[in-house]
Amino acid sequence: MPNAFINAPGDVTARLTDYIVSARWTDLPADVRHETLRSFFNIVGCTVGGARHEVVELADTTLGEYSGDPHATVIGRGHKADALHACLINCLASSIYSYDDTHAEAVVHPAGPVATAALALAERRPVNGADLLLAVALGIEMTCRLSKAISVPPARGTVAWSQTGITAGVGAAVAAAKLLNLDATRLQYAIGIALSQAAGFRVMHATMVSSLMPAQGAQTGLRAAVLAERGFTASPAALEGRYGFLDVFADTPHVPALVDGLGERFEILRNTYKPYPCGIVIHPIIDACLQLRREHAIDPAQVSTVRIKASPGAIALCDRRNPQNELQAHVSLYHWTAAALIRGVARIDELRDPTVQDPAIMEFQDKVEAVGDPAVAADATVVTITLKDGRSHTCRIDHCTGSASNPMTDAQLTGKFTDLAQPIIGAERTQRLVDQCWSIEGMADAGDLSRAAG
Amino acid sequence: MPNAFINAPGDVTARLTDYIVSARWTDLPADVRHETLRSFFNIVGCTVGGARHEVVELADTTLGEYSGDPHATVIGRGHKADALHACLINCLASSIYSYDDTHAEAVVHPAGPVATAALALAERRPVNGADLLLAVALGIEMTCRLSKAISVPPARGTVAWSQTGITAGVGAAVAAAKLLNLDATRLQYAIGIALSQAAGFRVMHATMVSSLMPAQGAQTGLRAAVLAERGFTASPAALEGRYGFLDVFADTPHVPALVDGLGERFEILRNTYKPYPCGIVIHPIIDACLQLRREHAIDPAQVSTVRIKASPGAIALCDRRNPQNELQAHVSLYHWTAAALIRGVARIDELRDPTVQDPAIMEFQDKVEAVGDPAVAADATVVTITLKDGRSHTCRIDHCTGSASNPMTDAQLTGKFTDLAQPIIGAERTQRLVDQCWSIEGMADAGDLSRAAG
Repeated sequence: MPNAFINAPGDVTARLTDYIVSARWTDLPADVRHETLRSFFNIVGCTVGGARHEVVELADTTLGEYSGDPHATVIGRGHKADALHACLINCLASSIYSYDDTHAEAVVHPAGPVATAALALAERRPVNGADLLLAVALGIEMTCRLSKAISVPPARGTVAWSQTGITAGVGAAVAAAKLLNLDATRLQYAIGIALSQAAGFRVMHATMVSSLMPAQGAQTGLRAAVLAERGFTASPAALEGRYGFLDVFADTPHVPALVDGLGERFEILRNTYKPYPCGIVIHPIIDACLQLRREHAIDPAQVSTVRIKASPGAIALCDRRNPQNELQAHVSLYHWTAAALIRGVARIDELRDPTVQDPAIMEFQDKVEAVGDPAVAADATVVTITLKDGRSHTCRIDHCTGSASNPMTDAQLTGKFTDLAQPIIGAERTQRLVDQCWSIEGMADAGDLSRAAG
Repeated sequence: MPNAFINAPGDVTARLTDYIVSARWTDLPADVRHETLRSFFNIVGCTVGGARHEVVELADTTLGEYSGDPHATVIGRGHKADALHACLINCLASSIYSYDDTHAEAVVHPAGPVATAALALAERRPVNGADLLLAVALGIEMTCRLSKAISVPPARGTVAWSQTGITAGVGAAVAAAKLLNLDATRLQYAIGIALSQAAGFRVMHATMVSSLMPAQGAQTGLRAAVLAERGFTASPAALEGRYGFLDVFADTPHVPALVDGLGERFEILRNTYKPYPCGIVIHPIIDACLQLRREHAIDPAQVSTVRIKASPGAIALCDRRNPQNELQAHVSLYHWTAAALIRGVARIDELRDPTVQDPAIMEFQDKVEAVGDPAVAADATVVTITLKDGRSHTCRIDHCTGSASNPMTDAQLTGKFTDLAQPIIGAERTQRLVDQCWSIEGMADAGDLSRAAG
């Protein structure tokens, strides 16, 4: 619909920027404020947990040679760097295990780029905890709305793009711009500059670059905001203009998803947190396998076949058999089926190379058959195990753990955080950081949190 | 053609990386070597000439706060920065006046990102002049081939993408990877990492971000190469895989344009250099206006109408009347028609705000009518001036100055370089730099060139 696009600043951008500029933390409904806190809490845990991953180590060491004055904490790594570098590395860590958060409709992981940009900036320009949370809330809201507007029906988009890759920059830019108190015009520039780097296609999944895409989005967004603050300009029609974001990334955009109900409808309420460190579409399958193993004391050696009816999305994204390493295992439903049935748990250890390359896990995958069924929702599955003696057991999951209809509890989030952080910063610091994160709203200088997580 | 795409390392990437890894400067034909030198010479002049532009100043000052150890020269600005920052700012300067180079078929400006990435790296890891030129030759070749494969018939692409934005990263990555002597596997990673940031859509044109897109490409490419050197991986199918570069950016890719005739067909021979600091599709119109003014002593006050038959591309990209500032004037055929007829020249002064906002120039544009004609080639035009006394004069341009069929001479390039550089670094240093650039092939340490241009 080329005629729907304009080349002048339009209503879409104006409505968004007006809302963002005027938003106040205390105006957000209580459930939105709490979900913001949960999103923030979860992603800090993921960031600490990923901090010593070899890919994070590689990027920090290599690009650290180009880093400037140490204004911001590289979380969980015991040193500081310039805010743009810290933001890149922290976001990379937050997503390296695919253990972060996912919007329940748009397949986007909003919190990492937004929170790491905000945290890096908070060490350079002090802000209090409530202001930090507000910036995070707005950045996540924008990320999810952008992605919905180009990918969730009635919008029609293409699975070719990494939704996080192409929206993360704006989310991070909005969060940073809010912390910088940019006016509507400069906020619009920040969004436009960030969109000039909206990038990432799906062939990258299951390689190191998969996590570099959100990280680059985070850095791009933070950079866009600091450039816009000084007056660097971008097209005012970057979002809604012809050859702009909506035009380029959607076959048919759905603008109301982006601009309607600002301050009333909050997409962050549909943000979900991963109980397992892998592609979210695999989660119902893991739930089913763990439940079958528990209820029927399944002996993996006695399993003849595992038949999975999965959502079409699970097949489209994760139909990868016999992954060779951790990065491929993230998005292999066969690996996780085997690991869950053999190990009875699905945590970081089940993701790492020794497990992925375990012959027992690899061979078991030959027993697994998965088919997509349009009648199966993204958070659902039906798994049937047939044993060598002919018996069979079926488990049907309607809403998997961590889904919007069956969310992780605060206590489960604390458990996940603790599991992630303890190996990196020890039990005592982890406990302190957990407490600080849950109470960040009252913190006078939000930068203290990153410093505590160093 | 989704079935044409694969998810494993393919022949396309392997052929490219094998060629790049094995290429030697002395194996390039003499005309290719000379055109590489011309491309390099031209872009260094553009970089020096743009170094003090207010947009470059803004970006250098703002992002300089995040820059690391001063390993590389920020050309024409009297200081050094880390190589990634220097690369970004130098590329921004090289393209800020839209005065750089353009491939004769693909609408891509290849030299800026490639040369600035190579120059920044050359100060960090010393190389000789011939090696630098080889890296530049290969980077330009890849940029042009990538763009042809997705946009030049028989390929079918979309005008929505900035061709430079989406290909510059790979060009810069290839140049940097060649200087780093990466093997084929790591070169493939570098290309993949760069592609993860392939970005930029056309709504950005005529704003500051327009020049930031190639600059971000240059920096992304350099970063990709240094990451790949240390073992950072990307999808081996980033170019030819499903949801990879060819799939995403072309409706119908034309793979032979990318991989056929490597080492035999050289796209750099079709690289052209701008005689006027504006969108290349406007150049034939400027030629015609200057010629009409010269041959018929046109008095602008006596002009009744100017009728332009232009290429469809000129209309698609530059049909912008009454630009308000330099950035908009870059891509306004009306502005340049007025400026050329009133001033009789078309240089940097005619681009800057005082000329753009000159009431005489602005009002004259009301006399100009431009229509696209599929029979008019991109380097051609027919301009008819009708005077108030009823007389009319027509000028037909078949191949404008600087086009592939009517290239700028080496002497013209030297004149352009001198005009650009003298206001920035003075006459004496300009003369020395001109001499150094033309003789870089014999330079033992190519970093000396950047240092001389500081």
